[in-house]
Amino acid sequence: PSDSNLIRATLFPGDGIGPEIAESVKQVFRVADVPIEWEEHFVGKEIDPRTQSFLTWESLESVKTNKIGLKGPMATPIGKGHRSLNLTLRKELNLYANVRPCYSLPGYKTKYDDVDLITIRENTEGEYSGLEHQVVRGVVESIKIITRQASLRVAEYAFHYAKTHGRKRVSAIHKANIMQKTDGLFLKCCQEVALKYPEIKYEEVVIDNCCMMLVKNPALFDVLVMPNLYGDIISDLCAGLIGGLGLTPSINIGLDGIALAEAVHGSAPDIAGKNLANPTALLLSAVSMLHHLNLHEKGDRIQDAVLKTIAEGKYRTGDLGGTATTTDFTKAICDHL
Amino acid sequence: PSDSNLIRATLFPGDGIGPEIAESVKQVFRVADVPIEWEEHFVGKEIDPRTQSFLTWESLESVKTNKIGLKGPMATPIGKGHRSLNLTLRKELNLYANVRPCYSLPGYKTKYDDVDLITIRENTEGEYSGLEHQVVRGVVESIKIITRQASLRVAEYAFHYAKTHGRKRVSAIHKANIMQKTDGLFLKCCQEVALKYPEIKYEEVVIDNCCMMLVKNPALFDVLVMPNLYGDIISDLCAGLIGGLGLTPSINIGLDGIALAEAVHGSAPDIAGKNLANPTALLLSAVSMLHHLNLHEKGDRIQDAVLKTIAEGKYRTGDLGGTATTTDFTKAICDHL
Ligand SMILES: CC(C)[C@H](C(=O)O)[C@@H](O)C(=O)O
Ligand SMILES: CC(C)[C@H](C(=O)O)[C@@H](O)C(=O)O
Repeated sequence: PSDSNLIRATLFPGDGIGPEIAESVKQVFRVADVPIEWEEHFVGKEIDPRTQSFLTWESLESVKTNKIGLKGPMATPIGKGHRSLNLTLRKELNLYANVRPCYSLPGYKTKYDDVDLITIRENTEGEYSGLEHQVVRGVVESIKIITRQASLRVAEYAFHYAKTHGRKRVSAIHKANIMQKTDGLFLKCCQEVALKYPEIKYEEVVIDNCCMMLVKNPALFDVLVMPNLYGDIISDLCAGLIGGLGLTPSINIGLDGIALAEAVHGSAPDIAGKNLANPTALLLSAVSMLHHLNLHEKGDRIQDAVLKTIAEGKYRTGDLGGTATTTDFTKAICDHL
Repeated sequence: PSDSNLIRATLFPGDGIGPEIAESVKQVFRVADVPIEWEEHFVGKEIDPRTQSFLTWESLESVKTNKIGLKGPMATPIGKGHRSLNLTLRKELNLYANVRPCYSLPGYKTKYDDVDLITIRENTEGEYSGLEHQVVRGVVESIKIITRQASLRVAEYAFHYAKTHGRKRVSAIHKANIMQKTDGLFLKCCQEVALKYPEIKYEEVVIDNCCMMLVKNPALFDVLVMPNLYGDIISDLCAGLIGGLGLTPSINIGLDGIALAEAVHGSAPDIAGKNLANPTALLLSAVSMLHHLNLHEKGDRIQDAVLKTIAEGKYRTGDLGGTATTTDFTKAICDHL
């Protein structure tokens, strides 16, 4: 029985610690009175021929219909004849931009206290084309594909994001000194889009140099946009600066208004079911989802409650050096709401 | 008039600050009585058709004959119709392994004080194949090539290095979950070589996770071996942990006993000719060269003198927050010899 005032959103609790951290999100949303009704989908037990993966066709249809979803960690089962769950979602839903804000958490000390970055990763092509083959025995090749279409849309997303979020600078990360054609095309597209945003400073940084600068002084960067693999690498590096993937939200932006927020950490099977998992990344991803739905007030309130709970330090899960359970931590957040 | 007791080595002073830091090496070697006679070569003023680059044929022949060389920064002139100087050297001399030790310098504080890593980079193929083309308008591809031959030899070098340098662990860095064929072959070769070194622990780490772990806790790693582009990225990241490329040595190992040590930082045209450059990376690269020649006593003595000078902190160049000139710093090192 669905309430017409509620927004329907697909929820993939995922594997391992997924169900526990998803429970935390559901509870926080209830307490914060978020007008969302979850439609839960689980990874299938066998390969669905229509998706060529363990993802069910129905779950993909659910995201396509609701246009909004939240996803916990999914461990792709090992074996042949099927596609990775993450890659299937990205391809089937045309999730062309992966956005990962990464900022120092007040009160949680790492070596860096001045991180405030947004990485925007092209999420559909590049080194993830899946095109590979053996040329002759002992010689294999992988093909990296860069298209004008995918590069323009992610560049457009990055500049639009910068403009609408009060950001001052977009850095395109590349290795065009070596991959002149592919990364060269990516840069050309960024340059074209940059012309439409004269108020945003645009720069180009070679990936090796970018990584060196990030570890020396992350405050040198603001919004970073880049091809798929560089985004994979740099977003994890940035997460490391502030404490790890357990703390960083992520949202995938697709065509036709679709968005899928996701916790990008693993499913941590070793602590699964033990009430020890840190739900922060999924909670903050859920916050990104709320902002995407223009539920800014709800999003800000939940984010404040999460950050306050971490800052106070009384209830912290094991990964942050504390002894709180997932439910302790969640309760503390709810108390802050 | 060459003294038959001397070892002849090719020296490319390079561009920008190159000649100044090369002068520093020459002076330190004189004072330390290193039995080396330099054969200097400069980058040509025009393209040499035999190398298709600004490198002269004679300079390549010099390294091939002497089998040992030292190289300062070289800025590849912009323009078409020629190959990058660095890539030409790597290809023509078959410099298959790039070795970059990276350790915290005593007395020079960064956010990390426990870095002691060796990155070993495959240096001839992978994403640097140069194979790129436009498929149709708006769609370009770059081809990454991994061969069994190049993977085995760099893996062999890494394990041999670990064994002969008292290292305990080799981590192969990859993205074989996505590039199953190329990075998969690279890993398979590492696994084969690992079997021959049961005393060295072998592990495989996905590149995104590796970068996150490196910024959180570099002490988790020891020797890292990887395909070309990952090596480019990770070696710069590691350099960033200890202060930057101005401080890290590098040596390229080739076939037929050839080795070319090199400072991998840029030519810093802004401070060129002003006696402000820091010669540390070139000096420590020269030390790697001495070890390669089995001149260990000389190598250790020079390294000690360089590290002591930096640790004392009285003479530091501008990049390290000091006001010493290149010649002040060099003199202080010589005084320590
Ligand atoms: C699990 C893996 C395929 C994935 C990727 O490489 O994109 C992950 O690292 C990520 O960043 O979401
Ligand atoms: C200058 C550039 C071509 C080179 C590379 O990418 O290999 C540099 O970054 C290096 O690491 O030596």
